[in-house]
Amino acid sequence: MTHRIALIPGDGIGAEVMPSALRCLEALSRRPGLNFEFTDFPYSCEYYARHGVMMPADGIEQLRPHDAILLGAVGYPGVPDHISLWGLLLPIRREFGQYVNLRPVRLLRGLTSALRDRGPEDINYLVVRENNEGEYSDIGGRMYDGLPEAMAIQANVITRKGSERILNYAFRLAESRARQTLAYATKSNGIKHSMPFWDEQVAAMAPRYPAVNVEQYHVDILAANLVTHPDWFDVIVGTNLFGDILSDLGPATAGGIGVAPSANINPDPGVPSMFEPVHGSAPDIAGQDIANPIAMIWTVVMMLEHLNENDAATDLMSALEAVTGEGKVMTRDLGGTAGTVEFTDRVLAELG
Amino acid sequence: MTHRIALIPGDGIGAEVMPSALRCLEALSRRPGLNFEFTDFPYSCEYYARHGVMMPADGIEQLRPHDAILLGAVGYPGVPDHISLWGLLLPIRREFGQYVNLRPVRLLRGLTSALRDRGPEDINYLVVRENNEGEYSDIGGRMYDGLPEAMAIQANVITRKGSERILNYAFRLAESRARQTLAYATKSNGIKHSMPFWDEQVAAMAPRYPAVNVEQYHVDILAANLVTHPDWFDVIVGTNLFGDILSDLGPATAGGIGVAPSANINPDPGVPSMFEPVHGSAPDIAGQDIANPIAMIWTVVMMLEHLNENDAATDLMSALEAVTGEGKVMTRDLGGTAGTVEFTDRVLAELG
Ligand SMILES: CC(C)[C@H](C(=O)O)[C@@H](O)C(=O)O
Ligand SMILES: CC(C)[C@H](C(=O)O)[C@@H](O)C(=O)O
Repeated sequence: MTHRIALIPGDGIGAEVMPSALRCLEALSRRPGLNFEFTDFPYSCEYYARHGVMMPADGIEQLRPHDAILLGAVGYPGVPDHISLWGLLLPIRREFGQYVNLRPVRLLRGLTSALRDRGPEDINYLVVRENNEGEYSDIGGRMYDGLPEAMAIQANVITRKGSERILNYAFRLAESRARQTLAYATKSNGIKHSMPFWDEQVAAMAPRYPAVNVEQYHVDILAANLVTHPDWFDVIVGTNLFGDILSDLGPATAGGIGVAPSANINPDPGVPSMFEPVHGSAPDIAGQDIANPIAMIWTVVMMLEHLNENDAATDLMSALEAVTGEGKVMTRDLGGTAGTVEFTDRVLAELG
Repeated sequence: MTHRIALIPGDGIGAEVMPSALRCLEALSRRPGLNFEFTDFPYSCEYYARHGVMMPADGIEQLRPHDAILLGAVGYPGVPDHISLWGLLLPIRREFGQYVNLRPVRLLRGLTSALRDRGPEDINYLVVRENNEGEYSDIGGRMYDGLPEAMAIQANVITRKGSERILNYAFRLAESRARQTLAYATKSNGIKHSMPFWDEQVAAMAPRYPAVNVEQYHVDILAANLVTHPDWFDVIVGTNLFGDILSDLGPATAGGIGVAPSANINPDPGVPSMFEPVHGSAPDIAGQDIANPIAMIWTVVMMLEHLNENDAATDLMSALEAVTGEGKVMTRDLGGTAGTVEFTDRVLAELG
């Protein structure tokens, strides 16, 4: 069986960590029965500079027939976010119904947490972010623009269908883990309409998963607890914005944004899911071979799991963690001297 | 001159830390020229149990003639948030136009940060939270409730007037500090209508404060940086929700929520501002003399500053920090054994 993978290296360090991913996948594909067919898509700010759009009008259709999309990062100084992100990243997440954004936060062996006295046994949870609706809705606008009375209104749209599907995913995930604990982020003590509705969806679903301990946290307290009590958490579910914030905060306690992977998943067959490191294109450090490829390699592990290539996923993750655990070859952001290529070499050597 | 102070001890540990505040104020009022007139308001969940409302219909009018309001905390299990908070705390903030929520984050001498290798010199910033509009708007509702098509829509309302007044406050504050740096939280790369409008208000105001370095951070990255680079920050301004999250996260790195003070300020004369610790009523630890009074005492310092009693404010803060710096008498949440009363005794002894 051949997995058809769409590659979007994108901009900045996105394009620099993509080769690390490909080298890992090529090494794994030397195994019998594991095959990939890669198709390159140049969609990026450079593409925008040449064509005036981030991807062609039929870009989504070109991506559709693939089993997965692997993305580096998009964004470049001078290209406004509403072009680079709303023209590529967000449409892919939405048009393919990738309603789950799964972001593991785990302190890899050998890495030092920014938190005092915290080790790998303390930081190991999954952030499940709703990825399609909520605070990122397109609905809203302005009035009296340019006048003293100017105002903007942004609608936050939470649907029962959208909540149920993400909550079902999160409950199932929690059920499958040893601790069977699901924390959900809310702010129903302050935000009057959307958040009590969200809480009700959680309450309605909980009886269907009797094994799962459900814990409510207002997002402010939850953020604080990720610093003071990371060991309390197992699976965390949140709306689009809350999931976004918590899944950047978590990695800050676990080696930094340079190691954080993510998966944008539509669990239904027939549409591709997208895998991308949490970090952005980081133009300030691009082109110097100093980007950390860990986030991307871990992202590849998530893609392999999604493709049901569990042995390959386990082996790649073990190789990665053997290298970090040994600590001899470490990237700059983690206190070492290794470049992107050297670190990847070491992982490949370990993978054998 | 006599300062008329409205006291709302509220529920749980709110009522337990209020005596600490009063003892400090009484000690200070032995000084010539410093006088307080206290009026007690029993508004709380207990009041609600007896009267069916959190405060009487003319509660706001009763509070109005005071120079400041000092609040402990409100909330009690069994009383839903929409009653305890929307019936007392949030109306006070809004009806008195307390549009600034000022929350200092500073690691007091002698306290240990939850962050590795971070000391008092690394954590010292002010969070300025917009406190009246934004994500906490009352506008919104539901459709198809109870049906599979159910949805809730929450409006986030950002006005030019509301933005300008909080930004002016934040810029002026930044201008007055040594580092003259203002970080603003946004999420304009993902949230399409409200956040670009907010960014424009910042951009329009910046030229009026040429001495201030303005730095834009998306809220996810900002949250992460409060963990990895707290030393980057001086003054941080954010919308209601973003300010809420960041001002709970900050204290988590600086001794915990038991030490975090806050002021809800309307800078115009003639309406009272309200001072309250960031922590809630914490029913789980109430009634045991183990609540940390530091947040409340520091909150009193903020109130004294607001009342222009700067000598008293400085002396109380020095006494508090002398006690934490010495480290002999410490509360339980900070690794010591002292109760609320014993810790307060020690601060009073230091105050002389
Ligand atoms: C209790 C809640 C409504 C409140 C808020 O979000 O404003 C609290 O978290 C705070 O920060 O004062
Ligand atoms: C770039 C931005 C729109 C995006 C988001 O908020 O979704 C990013 O922060 C992420 O988390 O993938």
